[in-house]
Amino acid sequence: MIDIQSLVNDLNAVRAKSPLVHNITNYVVMNNTANGLLALGASPVMAHSLEEAAEMASIASALVINIGTLEPQWVEAMLLAGKTALSKNIPVVFDPVGAGATSYRTRVCKQIIEECRPTIIRGNASEIMALHQANIKTKGVDSTDSSDIAVSSAQSLALQTGAVVVVSGQTDYITDGKNTQTVENGNPMMARVTGMGCTATAVVAAFAAVDPDALQAAVHGMAVMGIAGEIASGKSRGNGSLQVNFLDELYNLDETAIKNIIK
Amino acid sequence: MIDIQSLVNDLNAVRAKSPLVHNITNYVVMNNTANGLLALGASPVMAHSLEEAAEMASIASALVINIGTLEPQWVEAMLLAGKTALSKNIPVVFDPVGAGATSYRTRVCKQIIEECRPTIIRGNASEIMALHQANIKTKGVDSTDSSDIAVSSAQSLALQTGAVVVVSGQTDYITDGKNTQTVENGNPMMARVTGMGCTATAVVAAFAAVDPDALQAAVHGMAVMGIAGEIASGKSRGNGSLQVNFLDELYNLDETAIKNIIK
Amino acid sequence: MIDIQSLVNDLNAVRAKSPLVHNITNYVVMNNTANGLLALGASPVMAHSLEEAAEMASIASALVINIGTLEPQWVEAMLLAGKTALSKNIPVVFDPVGAGATSYRTRVCKQIIEECRPTIIRGNASEIMALHQANIKTKGVDSTDSSDIAVSSAQSLALQTGAVVVVSGQTDYITDGKNTQTVENGNPMMARVTGMGCTATAVVAAFAAVDPDALQAAVHGMAVMGIAGEIASGKSRGNGSLQVNFLDELYNLDETAIKNIIK
Repeated sequence: MIDIQSLVNDLNAVRAKSPLVHNITNYVVMNNTANGLLALGASPVMAHSLEEAAEMASIASALVINIGTLEPQWVEAMLLAGKTALSKNIPVVFDPVGAGATSYRTRVCKQIIEECRPTIIRGNASEIMALHQANIKTKGVDSTDSSDIAVSSAQSLALQTGAVVVVSGQTDYITDGKNTQTVENGNPMMARVTGMGCTATAVVAAFAAVDPDALQAAVHGMAVMGIAGEIASGKSRGNGSLQVNFLDELYNLDETAIKNIIK
Repeated sequence: MIDIQSLVNDLNAVRAKSPLVHNITNYVVMNNTANGLLALGASPVMAHSLEEAAEMASIASALVINIGTLEPQWVEAMLLAGKTALSKNIPVVFDPVGAGATSYRTRVCKQIIEECRPTIIRGNASEIMALHQANIKTKGVDSTDSSDIAVSSAQSLALQTGAVVVVSGQTDYITDGKNTQTVENGNPMMARVTGMGCTATAVVAAFAAVDPDALQAAVHGMAVMGIAGEIASGKSRGNGSLQVNFLDELYNLDETAIKNIIK
Repeated sequence: MIDIQSLVNDLNAVRAKSPLVHNITNYVVMNNTANGLLALGASPVMAHSLEEAAEMASIASALVINIGTLEPQWVEAMLLAGKTALSKNIPVVFDPVGAGATSYRTRVCKQIIEECRPTIIRGNASEIMALHQANIKTKGVDSTDSSDIAVSSAQSLALQTGAVVVVSGQTDYITDGKNTQTVENGNPMMARVTGMGCTATAVVAAFAAVDPDALQAAVHGMAVMGIAGEIASGKSRGNGSLQVNFLDELYNLDETAIKNIIK
């Protein structure tokens, strides 16, 4: 059960403080991620050069690492920024895009988790299962999409890594390994907008920037995504208008809309 | 004359199979290309690192190579992925963005065509003429935009390379060198949306993923682009709304709309 | 006081000549910048490879250098293209995104200004103040946002560098160091759309491509941005729809709209 007042307080805190969220993310979603953070009231910056990744991470209130279009030089910058953030207690939110699709992705994910110790990891069911399997190295590739299996993978991954783990899907599961919460808002059309998950990761990072309770920050971020996405989907004819309407709903989200829509 | 039933069958096949389309494409259009493929019902992935380009191409149902913002490291990945796809009979669709504008672009296009032997090449009139000239090495830069000259260049290029060649414009010409078909749908406003041609290339790739007849796949892809673009243009005040409405029309395209609009 | 007839003449010249604007810019804004230039009637090209940056700059009517997501290889291409443009009297418009945020950004800005001698520099208040301070090397980081201080920094920077300097904000200030003009159009919601400033830089470049008077070109570019943005903001619920509506207004901007809205 989500405490609405606590969610609204965090949303207001993001808008009041406009935390700087440093993103080392992929080419496909940069524009939308930046606009998502601006719609929410946060302040995005994208910077991936080794020359400035550590300095930028140092002045940020949260760091997003997203491997969607990874390459070796970018991974170096992710590790540098992530370790800098870790050493300064700045929350790191990790999005393991496509984990399991190629061996390179799975290997890089493992390295980022080990060296940067993310505060929060957010992925879809198959990404979280791939990470968990990579970690325990005992199972082959699992093709099932069952959310039950993803939940138990998420819980194990959380216990192994110390991160709060988010599995997004029809129901979003958010767990620290012991306590598992759910967010039931959203709409299947959201999966047809590229980078909606990447925006979720950045929104969660904005909440982590203002709320030191990582489990609660992740629940609040996913709830805001689901509520804005659900309202926007009801007004959209397809993924083009949904991408636009989602930003408008995030921009206008208030306590009344949250109370009316939250499940 | 386009066979409507065959076009609808291919569209339904894309939606049913949701083929993975691997894109090594340019920074400007990545978001729109991904959303275009998602609107159509295909599954896009963008991956350009040498560490995974071959592995990703191997598991894809089609590969898009687009040189819009090329640089040497990306070209290496394009060649690697393209040769991998060629060896596995995965269709390669090549978009020679800006061929002829600089000598580097023309040189890279020639190399990609020779080493990856694309199944389909899609460009505008001046790009196709530039490729053809590069290939026969007899004419200087030709500044004319006449579509007649582009058509004969397309036919020669198709015969020389073995690729189906698409020249997009007011009328789209699709040829394997012997058989030349046309698509008459579309709207001039589409040229004012950046990357509309790049989306066409990706849509053609999605059709090539489900239809082994490359000429027919290219005709179907261009027809779907023209029909969705024509409907969307009628609802749009400018290139901003057209970019959004185009995705919505592609998302909702069905047999009735196709029958009503096709020329 | 902006001369409306002169502004309309320049706008018509952009639409008639469709000048090629070469952009070496950041990943976040490439799509929007290209669409902004297309909406205005100009012809955008993005090309950052060392293999072609000089050749592309040579055939362009204006060059945009924007360091938003800089890295060493891109900076090399910026310098190469910028020096090529300088040697051929092609106007260079520089956007020092995030100057002052990290020492790397400030250092690169200084190098670009020294080696490429931009025709026009456009930034927000803190970027222009950071550039000015970097240049005179006497003041520490100044956290004030006062536009008075930004204006005097802009004037000094203009005198030191020979560039026309634009400080965008609620009021835009455009100065060559002696003559300072203002643009009062716009809407605060524009700052919530990522890359709106980057689009302004590209629009200014399109005007500089057709108007050899750099001060006037910059005033006209900022006026068009402010007018289209103000009309679009009145029709938009949030930053999602504003991004779309802005392009549509730019696409449709005409003398009547300019006369009705200009302040």
